[in-house]
Amino acid sequence: MSLDLAPSPVRSDAPAPSSGRALTVAIVGATGAVGAELIDQLERRAFPVGELRLLASPRSAGRSLTFRGRPVAVQVLDDDAFDGVDVAFFSAGAGVSRRYGPVAAARGALVVDNSSAFRMDEATPLVVPEVNGRDLPAEGAGRLVANPNCVTAVAVMALGPLHNEVPIRRVIAATYQAASGAGAAAMEELRASTAAYLDGRAFQPQVLKHPYAFNLFSHDAAVDPATGYNGEESKVMDELRKILGAPDLRVGITCVRVPVLRAHAMALTVEFASPLAAERAREILSTAPGVRLVDDVAANHFPMPNEASGRDEVLVGRIRPDTSDPTGCSLALFVVGDQLLKGAALNAIQIAEAMVGR
Amino acid sequence: MSLDLAPSPVRSDAPAPSSGRALTVAIVGATGAVGAELIDQLERRAFPVGELRLLASPRSAGRSLTFRGRPVAVQVLDDDAFDGVDVAFFSAGAGVSRRYGPVAAARGALVVDNSSAFRMDEATPLVVPEVNGRDLPAEGAGRLVANPNCVTAVAVMALGPLHNEVPIRRVIAATYQAASGAGAAAMEELRASTAAYLDGRAFQPQVLKHPYAFNLFSHDAAVDPATGYNGEESKVMDELRKILGAPDLRVGITCVRVPVLRAHAMALTVEFASPLAAERAREILSTAPGVRLVDDVAANHFPMPNEASGRDEVLVGRIRPDTSDPTGCSLALFVVGDQLLKGAALNAIQIAEAMVGR
Repeated sequence: MSLDLAPSPVRSDAPAPSSGRALTVAIVGATGAVGAELIDQLERRAFPVGELRLLASPRSAGRSLTFRGRPVAVQVLDDDAFDGVDVAFFSAGAGVSRRYGPVAAARGALVVDNSSAFRMDEATPLVVPEVNGRDLPAEGAGRLVANPNCVTAVAVMALGPLHNEVPIRRVIAATYQAASGAGAAAMEELRASTAAYLDGRAFQPQVLKHPYAFNLFSHDAAVDPATGYNGEESKVMDELRKILGAPDLRVGITCVRVPVLRAHAMALTVEFASPLAAERAREILSTAPGVRLVDDVAANHFPMPNEASGRDEVLVGRIRPDTSDPTGCSLALFVVGDQLLKGAALNAIQIAEAMVGR
Repeated sequence: MSLDLAPSPVRSDAPAPSSGRALTVAIVGATGAVGAELIDQLERRAFPVGELRLLASPRSAGRSLTFRGRPVAVQVLDDDAFDGVDVAFFSAGAGVSRRYGPVAAARGALVVDNSSAFRMDEATPLVVPEVNGRDLPAEGAGRLVANPNCVTAVAVMALGPLHNEVPIRRVIAATYQAASGAGAAAMEELRASTAAYLDGRAFQPQVLKHPYAFNLFSHDAAVDPATGYNGEESKVMDELRKILGAPDLRVGITCVRVPVLRAHAMALTVEFASPLAAERAREILSTAPGVRLVDDVAANHFPMPNEASGRDEVLVGRIRPDTSDPTGCSLALFVVGDQLLKGAALNAIQIAEAMVGR
């Protein structure tokens, strides 16, 4: 850390700054919604940044973003931008990651990739540190680690600790996904289209295909006509199996975009290999790292996006037996997590922290 | 029909006016969200109304509502208000129905009750005409028929035709419920709180317990601490079994209120007694009365609240095998229906039409 700069606000749950050397950190896709959160997280968690390189497409070059109170110019992404980089965070889509991720790794960076490009690549670890930190490689330099899809990341925070207690056999999920998953422009479209609706003005969707004001729709990823599942759903199915280390896990999922700004919610029905009491699940989740139990039956207070937004913890509640499974092997729960934080930027930084700390 | 009044707009799917005598019709709860839709439906469907009595609590007395272009004064609800009434629609909560429903029936009215008061009463038919019209009594006068919960009504429109093909064993549902289910004041709270949010103003919820602007929350019905399920969920479980005539049907459900104004959506995972192909389910639903198939994979166009609002049909799509059931016995689907129409007023009028037509 540069001591001549004002200290960033350190939250109680942030790790102490590393005692090692300050690192050169690159953010690819710095001007996007996740990019903004990455910059904020580096500051808030006192990540040992010596130099920060903000990389983006040519149309964002010349812009400047603030880090630790000082402006940092956005540079155009090219191969040489990774020279001397210790840690590179990628959040600019799968195409950019495929093109530049291997370049950054070849030049010695630890690459933490938020795109789907390498998640299911066998040689690439796909990691949520609280759940499968064991899958992180021993050495960071020159390695690429994938950050999961946002639904996957939030879901495994609840599923992982339960799976450790009794193996999970089947998950049926219905999601309530926020605008942020489609980027900053989609968040703005939700705001602008809602304002227009309230004013009685017409609004033509630009970012998303369907009207968003007080409306919801099946996730905008393309649907595979052979399976009937969209790309988002397929990602979650595959990624849950990989992170939980459960290749035979059966997953049924419906991904839906709802008019919420930045936290994803999901209703999960979970079948275990043997009975698991709701009370025991509640105990396990009440002490799980990164999880906050919000399960107040008397007050009808359960996880909500407005209480998850801007927070590191994933909220879990409505833990109860699934009444449609008379064997007692199934539980239902409701899970909400900030799509931009645990669903993206926070998890990416946590991966880097775990690697740098070694 | 009074021939001196301008004809009400008749939609192509509305039945021809009865050739019988004009009826005296009462609406209890006339000033609520469902009451307004009942008045509109009577007009649009050319229900044979001779006299319309709009009944409400004393605080609404003196107000006047429009029917067929003319003002109708709202009267205070009391026992004598049902004298000479042929058909009484109740939509003022279970307490009012318990108190006045039997009075209206005793005075010879056909009572169609939109509340939960009598739905699970063994002697009371609970009916969605397209699905279990056979359960309607032969005689209307002096009978009480219950109109189901809005989630139930929308769900059975998709489930009923499939259940006729292959018996359904299990349903797992996650709902995306609109503000209208909590009444006109909740719809206004959603609008007002969202406007305040966009303007950066504080807003104190009055109708619902939790902030509603760009937020969602577990359904506001009280949760039974013994089961972990809320009142809405329990209703749907019981009512699905009764309407489908499937006492052993296993139902798991999570009811969630989303920031949508008036159409309910739901993700359903349905297990059948034997395999049912998605293509066959699509065929069945494409010709089911009151159902519109919206299942355009190439265009990523599936059921949405904005396309269901104000429409009679229940929209069904995303019909596909449930990937978590390797036996081929389970399908997933997404269903959306207008909560105030098929979920309430339309179904109530359809019950009355079926009884009056006999």
